[in-house]
Amino acid sequence: MKKKYLMTPGPTPIPPEVALRMAEPIIHHRTPQFQETLGEVLDNLKYFFQTKNDVLLFACSGTGAMEAVAANLLSVGDKVVVVKGGKFGERWAEICQVYGAEVISIDVEWGEAVNPQEIEEKLKSHQSPVTSHQSKPIKAVFTTLCETSTGTLTNIQEIGNIIKNNKAILIVDAISGLGADDLQTDNWNVDVAVAGSQKGLMLPPGLSCVSLSKKAWASMENELPSYYFNFKKYKKVLVKPDTPFTPAISLIIGLRESLRLIRKEGLKNVLARHRQLAAATRAGIQEIGLQLFSKKPSSAVTAVQSPVNINSSKLISIMRDKFGVWIADGQAELKGKLFRIAHLGYIEKFDTIIALSALEMALKEMGYKLELGKAIGAAERVLEGENNA
Amino acid sequence: MKKKYLMTPGPTPIPPEVALRMAEPIIHHRTPQFQETLGEVLDNLKYFFQTKNDVLLFACSGTGAMEAVAANLLSVGDKVVVVKGGKFGERWAEICQVYGAEVISIDVEWGEAVNPQEIEEKLKSHQSPVTSHQSKPIKAVFTTLCETSTGTLTNIQEIGNIIKNNKAILIVDAISGLGADDLQTDNWNVDVAVAGSQKGLMLPPGLSCVSLSKKAWASMENELPSYYFNFKKYKKVLVKPDTPFTPAISLIIGLRESLRLIRKEGLKNVLARHRQLAAATRAGIQEIGLQLFSKKPSSAVTAVQSPVNINSSKLISIMRDKFGVWIADGQAELKGKLFRIAHLGYIEKFDTIIALSALEMALKEMGYKLELGKAIGAAERVLEGENNA
Repeated sequence: MKKKYLMTPGPTPIPPEVALRMAEPIIHHRTPQFQETLGEVLDNLKYFFQTKNDVLLFACSGTGAMEAVAANLLSVGDKVVVVKGGKFGERWAEICQVYGAEVISIDVEWGEAVNPQEIEEKLKSHQSPVTSHQSKPIKAVFTTLCETSTGTLTNIQEIGNIIKNNKAILIVDAISGLGADDLQTDNWNVDVAVAGSQKGLMLPPGLSCVSLSKKAWASMENELPSYYFNFKKYKKVLVKPDTPFTPAISLIIGLRESLRLIRKEGLKNVLARHRQLAAATRAGIQEIGLQLFSKKPSSAVTAVQSPVNINSSKLISIMRDKFGVWIADGQAELKGKLFRIAHLGYIEKFDTIIALSALEMALKEMGYKLELGKAIGAAERVLEGENNA
Repeated sequence: MKKKYLMTPGPTPIPPEVALRMAEPIIHHRTPQFQETLGEVLDNLKYFFQTKNDVLLFACSGTGAMEAVAANLLSVGDKVVVVKGGKFGERWAEICQVYGAEVISIDVEWGEAVNPQEIEEKLKSHQSPVTSHQSKPIKAVFTTLCETSTGTLTNIQEIGNIIKNNKAILIVDAISGLGADDLQTDNWNVDVAVAGSQKGLMLPPGLSCVSLSKKAWASMENELPSYYFNFKKYKKVLVKPDTPFTPAISLIIGLRESLRLIRKEGLKNVLARHRQLAAATRAGIQEIGLQLFSKKPSSAVTAVQSPVNINSSKLISIMRDKFGVWIADGQAELKGKLFRIAHLGYIEKFDTIIALSALEMALKEMGYKLELGKAIGAAERVLEGENNA
């Protein structure tokens, strides 16, 4: 017997009550029955996003929604600041380039968080009132709440403070972070936040959400070609509520259930749970002599440097195929060099204990010297400490 | 007690074995375990599309894949012929216009099928060897296998014969038709065919497929912005097999199961079943004095003109809310004027009997004069006749 434990930063495990809802006979979407579900989902998404603004829903995975943001908000030749400190920051840059924007990169070393002052400087240097062609103001700042590839958290609150009196809009890829790391969309002046279903929302991939502030709507010139992802088409029918194209019906039915679970637990408690699991994992990891990869770790996923002579691709294969514990390898240039344990979504303390247990045994099998049970002990002390706090 | 019977032309009912597969614990997509599933799905999709060429998979609903076709294949200023004979033909035209193509429309009356000669004439009139600016050759012909809004079948085979010696490529929206109406992609010289998961593939919406011929690949100049839907990104990783962005994992796992069901029944038998159910429905409808809307009916869906004084929106509400039988209203200008009964996907003879039975009772309730059971009798004669044939 071998059970499966999924602890990757997307997809994340589906709660059984959500899976069962999605397995019920499907219904048609242009009906009062579906409208009722969609209405509840749209309300609860506002709670999840901590916003009073509308949240749009798209049948696509996260990258589709990222592209939608660029296609709806940018015009050819727009200047944009992109924070690049991992695979997903780089994805923003690639998408902006495809849409003809002039990308001003802030290259952050992978594993470090951007210094918000750098963003302030870029904004200022392009803000001269006597505008020459070169000093066209910046249209948008593209950031990532949790850079999944490095497990790094960006200080969105501080960036929001910088941007709030600027014409530029603040765009946050919150795909892996939302529901794990706090993102106070309205309070922190976030104009656009993007989420994906297969992360904190505890669903299969295939559904994405975008929240848009009034400032974001006002800045939309919409010159670039866009049809399936055209925000105005979605906004127009939101009042019914309806979707302009066939929605991902089964995922939206699952989303109703997962948002009910989140409301029942309470978003504050959800975030506290993720923080606790991340802290317990970090304690366990460090106890057995391993090093965190990120200088500013997110609560969504913990990235760990693979020790010398331990190839992380091999490590995760052993954990998956021998122990049934699915964690993630490094991405792009970090493949083989780090591994990532998620705390994202439907995960609680004993999932974290299991991940550390499988890690201890797999590392030992690969010749890494450690005392079995030590990582678990350190993690338990964090879990117990916070329980008593 | 009231059971639910879904007979809309998308979504269509999900076979229980498919629903259960999708409710199993989800797995990560960058693993040998998922690759095995994806490999089987890609092979079986070729069988379903009747093609030797690759079929690409996208996490989006059908319109997303239609937009992908335009974004990858067209350039600004390209001349395209679009057959418009319903809502989905018009959608092709809208998408082509958004992408800057010059649309040469063939406006077919709703409910009628295009005369392939008209396409031939358009191609010829733009093919003069002494090219003035006006006679730039046509890049592509956009058609619809089954125009879902009118239940009309297009003669793709004949259009393919016309186009095969022309430089233009033949693009078919087969979203609602594939698996119900025969489409011999390779034999009939179809360069691009688009399918959606919530139709003949018996899955929830959120997954689309696009087959591309060598001629289609060769004609790709790819000047328009495209990232999430960029065909080349998908093609590049197909050999592993892999997807460039997070795929709709649960739907692909369901697709493995539904394609196994289709292979087991045999595509020829699947198509014959749809033909039989459509014929039985037509016989029943006509027996009680109703008129078909389409002059060239598809086997995916039967569109019926609502009788005088019977509003079809009201009729479908009674069928749904009183009898539990979900059929579809007319779309756009046909709302309230026709109703549509699907034969698409996981539907067999007794579903058709149920649809006709609910229709008889609902019509009677609305004051339409008919002898109860007559439509059923006519349908049974078709079902029995074909069984004995």
